Amino acid sequence: MSLFEKAKKDIVEVSSELDEQIWAHINDLTKPPGALGELEQVAFRFARIRRETIPAVPKKRLYTFAGDHGVTEEGVSAFPAEVTVQMVANMMQGGAAINVFGRHVDCDVQVVDVGVNADLSAMEGVLHRKVRMGTRNMVTEAAMTEAEVMQALEVGIALALDAAADGVTLMGTGEMGIGNTTPAAALMHVLLPCDLKQIVGRGTGVDDVGLQRKRDAIAAAVRLHSLDGNDQDPLLALQKVGGLEIAALTGLMLGCAAKRIAVVVDGFISSAAALVACKLNPATSDYLLFSHLSAEQGHRRFVEGLGVRPILDLGFRLGEGTGAALAMSLVDASVKMMREMATFSSAGVSTALEESGEGAA
Amino acid sequence: MSLFEKAKKDIVEVSSELDEQIWAHINDLTKPPGALGELEQVAFRFARIRRETIPAVPKKRLYTFAGDHGVTEEGVSAFPAEVTVQMVANMMQGGAAINVFGRHVDCDVQVVDVGVNADLSAMEGVLHRKVRMGTRNMVTEAAMTEAEVMQALEVGIALALDAAADGVTLMGTGEMGIGNTTPAAALMHVLLPCDLKQIVGRGTGVDDVGLQRKRDAIAAAVRLHSLDGNDQDPLLALQKVGGLEIAALTGLMLGCAAKRIAVVVDGFISSAAALVACKLNPATSDYLLFSHLSAEQGHRRFVEGLGVRPILDLGFRLGEGTGAALAMSLVDASVKMMREMATFSSAGVSTALEESGEGAA
Repeated sequence: MSLFEKAKKDIVEVSSELDEQIWAHINDLTKPPGALGELEQVAFRFARIRRETIPAVPKKRLYTFAGDHGVTEEGVSAFPAEVTVQMVANMMQGGAAINVFGRHVDCDVQVVDVGVNADLSAMEGVLHRKVRMGTRNMVTEAAMTEAEVMQALEVGIALALDAAADGVTLMGTGEMGIGNTTPAAALMHVLLPCDLKQIVGRGTGVDDVGLQRKRDAIAAAVRLHSLDGNDQDPLLALQKVGGLEIAALTGLMLGCAAKRIAVVVDGFISSAAALVACKLNPATSDYLLFSHLSAEQGHRRFVEGLGVRPILDLGFRLGEGTGAALAMSLVDASVKMMREMATFSSAGVSTALEESGEGAA
Repeated sequence: MSLFEKAKKDIVEVSSELDEQIWAHINDLTKPPGALGELEQVAFRFARIRRETIPAVPKKRLYTFAGDHGVTEEGVSAFPAEVTVQMVANMMQGGAAINVFGRHVDCDVQVVDVGVNADLSAMEGVLHRKVRMGTRNMVTEAAMTEAEVMQALEVGIALALDAAADGVTLMGTGEMGIGNTTPAAALMHVLLPCDLKQIVGRGTGVDDVGLQRKRDAIAAAVRLHSLDGNDQDPLLALQKVGGLEIAALTGLMLGCAAKRIAVVVDGFISSAAALVACKLNPATSDYLLFSHLSAEQGHRRFVEGLGVRPILDLGFRLGEGTGAALAMSLVDASVKMMREMATFSSAGVSTALEESGEGAA
């Protein structure tokens, strides 16, 4: 069985067996029930993924996958395509935002070349997993072949297995790829599905003309590849209008879910990969935490479509894994809450008064 | 001149002299302009407060002020009043949520007894600054005398001066006091001003009957002390319907602003203190960052009234400084962004393409 088939098969829905025990513990901590709001929800979800009432403090890692996009020929990005390789070099020097935040939250950040349009073989520190020198232009042909998309998916799955072997329990997702809001929006348009006007945004900052070019490019690609009906095959959509780093992210999420590693999903691009992963096996969603609401216009439509509530809302639209890294620190905090807070009985703190119409309540 | 008069006089509006330089630096970092959203705003505000284009990483401290409330006689809280002292003891054991989060974000947390209704003099580790054994019941008499409210304010100011002497540059606010959403709501009702229905919430979890008792108690107190007109004197309101820990928090904010220490304001109770501080000297607001939107019903009305945007929205309603502590870590991240990220020129990264109707944009 291929890595891909095995990962997809190994993903099982998270069990509800410990739910009562986990909530009993959270509600016994010295605070009014529910007073730590979303952090309690995050703690609960992490505990159930790990199948432990009081889980260990996470061991964290974040992979930033880099890839280029043939569709940049259509003028869909505010930055030139060579910025992808420049930013990978910047990451190797520790000067990108993801390096700063990774250090800040004490998360191991690893950069993976899965499809940069330049020879990076001499660049030390990068994980060399190149599938090809960028995707093809989706407007004129399929972004990847069937073999390429499968290879990129398995890059992500293999790294998830590496992480599991290293004892990682909390994974962050990140990416770098000039032009990649276009394939991400294309995937959401086809798979949610939703209207192009809602889902296509300005990315790193295109003007109105650039925005229209993005919409036109996606519409043309969707027509060319006959992806404009309901119930599209997620693997086919990924191959035709996706990206190499998006495929690797999809594989990473599948592999992590198969290994019961909780995944903190970064922003818009990572969300497109999450969508593909959840379409491939819906149980994947049990293992995903959404880190932040991106300022990229379509992200609100995405989170509403999935009915999820991102942990942070800081107006980020950078990618790299920056939102995921900061949210991972809040997952840590939620687990420490479970591990380090006193309980009402242990601390000798009185619980709430009985509810009644009379007296204090 | 008293500590209070001197602090109030020493607070000056933050200068805009460095604004251009600060933004020039933030916009030269290797990311699209604005792509780190609110974190860029936080970095900017911290830099201006510190009067440095690239400020040092913050030295952090958080004071949690504890006090009791005579108004608990009216049955306004879901927890019995003795929980205040039990929770102070819990904090001394390191088992409260604020201890856990303080350790997580590497912030020095100090607990101050400014008005607990129990003799804590034998409790080691507490900063003993008791003004009196809890406030009086605002429904039947003034919560504090003029001398008491001034003493509590100066407890906070003196601790701000201590922190400044210790090199602290980022202060978090916290409190513990069963019943203290009632005086906090009373102050907002009088000073914003706003409707009681909008501002009074369930605190640690009173039922509908308890909620009505809170509203009735505040309405009665406001009538008794003749605080039901516009343009109320903030000091008088604080004395009549405030709390000892709220007064100390007000003093802390004034003292920090006078010493150019940035203050991360916790939730609903701390916001009431911030409101009093800003009414005493409006320039105080330049030094305040709001950490999170509390789940306490009235807090949304408060942030809308002030036109501020809290950093986090996690549905917390605990106090202690828990929201402030977590947000302080994001202030740290924003400063590290300024200090550790590469610039476009230093990293050899291409900037955005020139905007134009043709070509990529």
